[in-house]
Amino acid sequence: MTDQAHMRRAIELAARGRGTTSPNPVVGCVVLDASGQVVGEGFHAYAGGPHAEVVALRAAGERARGGTAYVTLEPCDHTGRTGPCSLALLEAGVARVVVAVSDPNPAAAGGADRLRRHGVAVATGVLTGEAERGNAEWLTSVRLGRPHVTWKYAATLDGRSAAADGTSQWITSPESRADVHRLRGEADAIVAGIGTVLADDPRLTVRRPPAPSAGEDPAPPAGQGAPAARPLLRVVVDSDARTPPAARVLDGRAPTLVAVAADADAGALAARTEVVRLARRRPYGLDLAGLLAELHRRQIVSVLLEGGPTLAGSFLKEGLIDRVVGYLAPALLGAGPAALGPAGVATIAETHRLEFEDVTPTGPDLRLTARPVPLKEL
Amino acid sequence: MTDQAHMRRAIELAARGRGTTSPNPVVGCVVLDASGQVVGEGFHAYAGGPHAEVVALRAAGERARGGTAYVTLEPCDHTGRTGPCSLALLEAGVARVVVAVSDPNPAAAGGADRLRRHGVAVATGVLTGEAERGNAEWLTSVRLGRPHVTWKYAATLDGRSAAADGTSQWITSPESRADVHRLRGEADAIVAGIGTVLADDPRLTVRRPPAPSAGEDPAPPAGQGAPAARPLLRVVVDSDARTPPAARVLDGRAPTLVAVAADADAGALAARTEVVRLARRRPYGLDLAGLLAELHRRQIVSVLLEGGPTLAGSFLKEGLIDRVVGYLAPALLGAGPAALGPAGVATIAETHRLEFEDVTPTGPDLRLTARPVPLKEL
Ligand SMILES: NC(=O)c1ccc[n+]([C@@H]2O[C@H](COP(=O)([O-])OP(=O)(O)OC[C@H]3O[C@@H](n4cnc5c(N)ncnc54)[C@H](OP(=O)(O)O)[C@@H]3O)[C@@H](O)[C@H]2O)c1
Ligand SMILES: NC(=O)c1ccc[n+]([C@@H]2O[C@H](COP(=O)([O-])OP(=O)(O)OC[C@H]3O[C@@H](n4cnc5c(N)ncnc54)[C@H](OP(=O)(O)O)[C@@H]3O)[C@@H](O)[C@H]2O)c1
Repeated sequence: MTDQAHMRRAIELAARGRGTTSPNPVVGCVVLDASGQVVGEGFHAYAGGPHAEVVALRAAGERARGGTAYVTLEPCDHTGRTGPCSLALLEAGVARVVVAVSDPNPAAAGGADRLRRHGVAVATGVLTGEAERGNAEWLTSVRLGRPHVTWKYAATLDGRSAAADGTSQWITSPESRADVHRLRGEADAIVAGIGTVLADDPRLTVRRPPAPSAGEDPAPPAGQGAPAARPLLRVVVDSDARTPPAARVLDGRAPTLVAVAADADAGALAARTEVVRLARRRPYGLDLAGLLAELHRRQIVSVLLEGGPTLAGSFLKEGLIDRVVGYLAPALLGAGPAALGPAGVATIAETHRLEFEDVTPTGPDLRLTARPVPLKEL
Repeated sequence: MTDQAHMRRAIELAARGRGTTSPNPVVGCVVLDASGQVVGEGFHAYAGGPHAEVVALRAAGERARGGTAYVTLEPCDHTGRTGPCSLALLEAGVARVVVAVSDPNPAAAGGADRLRRHGVAVATGVLTGEAERGNAEWLTSVRLGRPHVTWKYAATLDGRSAAADGTSQWITSPESRADVHRLRGEADAIVAGIGTVLADDPRLTVRRPPAPSAGEDPAPPAGQGAPAARPLLRVVVDSDARTPPAARVLDGRAPTLVAVAADADAGALAARTEVVRLARRRPYGLDLAGLLAELHRRQIVSVLLEGGPTLAGSFLKEGLIDRVVGYLAPALLGAGPAALGPAGVATIAETHRLEFEDVTPTGPDLRLTARPVPLKEL
């Protein structure tokens, strides 16, 4: 098997940590012995838990000596909640380390250098693009200093999210709606506009999937009491503090942050939940970059933007959307509100261009995943 | 190989006639000898040309004796421009005939019965659904007494077909636009509304693909001077005869039919092109079922509806769309005209439900093909 094949496996392993490692990256590791046999596999399962390299080296034991380690992200070189992985690899006697993505985090970088200085052969750049996509949230957070934003919408083939009378239950299938819960489970925060809160009174919580059967996994199952599984933060963007006291987002089942304008009268709201104040922007609405900066300060790495069309249009206009996930129902309405509101496009040359990354059926619907082009330098 | 595998091959062969057999169906045929070896293949290549069975039997010659013939459509039993295929199969001494779809055309049916009466084993119902989809246009024409209608549209992910200022060149890719020409090449007529003619002045002709290299095919190449390749009919739906004299649809490169209201003043237009008169309907527009009946009388089997949104909405409302082909660009506009106009849906329960039949990339875009559900009894 080639370097690429082993790295692909390491990327697969990394993905198992999706949704539970935040604010850490997902990382996977495969260890071979000197003869090229796989002797250890591991992934980073939850923030504060052992790093992927440590898990894989533990499984490999003495057999790692003289062998090769494949790691999706450059091994860390600093002592955080766990010791530096560069040292663990040196101690295990690994002869070669293959890395997909270099660590952009100045505090953690330097692992590859230290390994080289101690005579370990280090190869980089193997399946970099694929591994970056798997870590898009964390890389966005480190490189841009703001959370990664996924805009999710559900619409008919003609781009509508409700009928002319406003009814919309259900445009998409149960399978699509279950998939939205999977998306929520991978996010640190869900953001909705006050329009959606007033119209739909959504709960914005996540139904966690059932726990995998015991013994399947060396790490605590995702979201099921793993030490670091943070509750999803619910965020409402609400300039004038209109969120009703009885709104489901204030039900206490998960923390809720309401963003209001600096000059809003938010006394009653502040008594029920946490309120953050943001600047107003022209022609309407709050400063969304400011909102993301606030979420970044709270170590929110990935945001799921669940609408509505007005808020999504503003995020798009300001270049703050990194991924679009659309659930497209095989249906036509011909009238009714559009899935996306004004996004700063007056003429065709200004169109927001994306590229499709994935197309997958969700029951009778299609789930389309796309990212803006030119791809932002992550 | 099983009956299904041979029938699948016959369906593939049939598809080679798409676009050139109208008003006849597409038909494919595979002939095996008594030992099960494939000894002949054929398809119906153009209206007036030899039937699939005749082509395949000719290739097989004496080897067909005691063998099996797979035919996508029940062999005809009448003498049209060619003799009945049921007789040809009997004369060739075929012992068994496997049929996918029974002939719904009373004038041609009876082939299976005649074969059975003469001691040939006849099996039916093999890959019926697949073969029906391949012949959807012709089956719609025979069963419903009107042409099969494909509505084609191009839109962004948010369902818009132009920016706020009306500009739309180009939302979709060159690959998608080339694919539209393939669709046109398969149709007998293209229908557009006067709104589209006034806004875009489209030519509505088809760029035929280059001829296949000589000797590849026993039949004349599709659309390249095949005896029966009919020119595509251009149809404009134009209640008040507003089509400008200089409109490209009146350029004489292909026949054009303009449908106007019974009370319209169409003298000038009638001097330039053929005009047909239809009843007006409430709240607006012409009688579209009447238009399709007129096209049926002209042996138009398949219609490509190329918009715009107002006309497409009316066709959909009246249940006159059999297939939707959408070219979806990975782009977002947030404002601008919608791809589909009012289609008689006021509330979500009235949504026009479809099901996806195919999803294929066309360059950076996606081509989505869907059909109304519950599937109309074809
Ligand atoms: N199909 C889907 O996937 C989907 C998803 C979600 C919602 N929806 C539907 O969308 C509808 C609600 O959408 P909506 O567009 O009315 O409301 P929205 O997008 O949820 O919220 C818009 C409101 O957010 C506030 N806001 C604050 N800062 C903003 C900014 N920078 N840019 C834009 N808005 C900002 C504004 O109100 P203030 O000025 O008062 O703060 C604005 O009116 C509902 O009917 C819901 O069912 C559909
Ligand atoms: N994205 C795409 O795929 C696509 C495709 C085509 C067009 N377009 C765009 O669509 C725009 C034009 O669309 P449009 O909606 O204004 O015009 P349209 O749908 O092409 O034509 C509508 C007109 O057709 C006439 N009509 C006659 N009988 C009708 C009936 N039963 N139902 C509905 N209309 C009937 C009506 O005018 P009268 O009463 O005067 O007869 C009506 O105003 C253009 O901007 C074009 O670029 C986009």
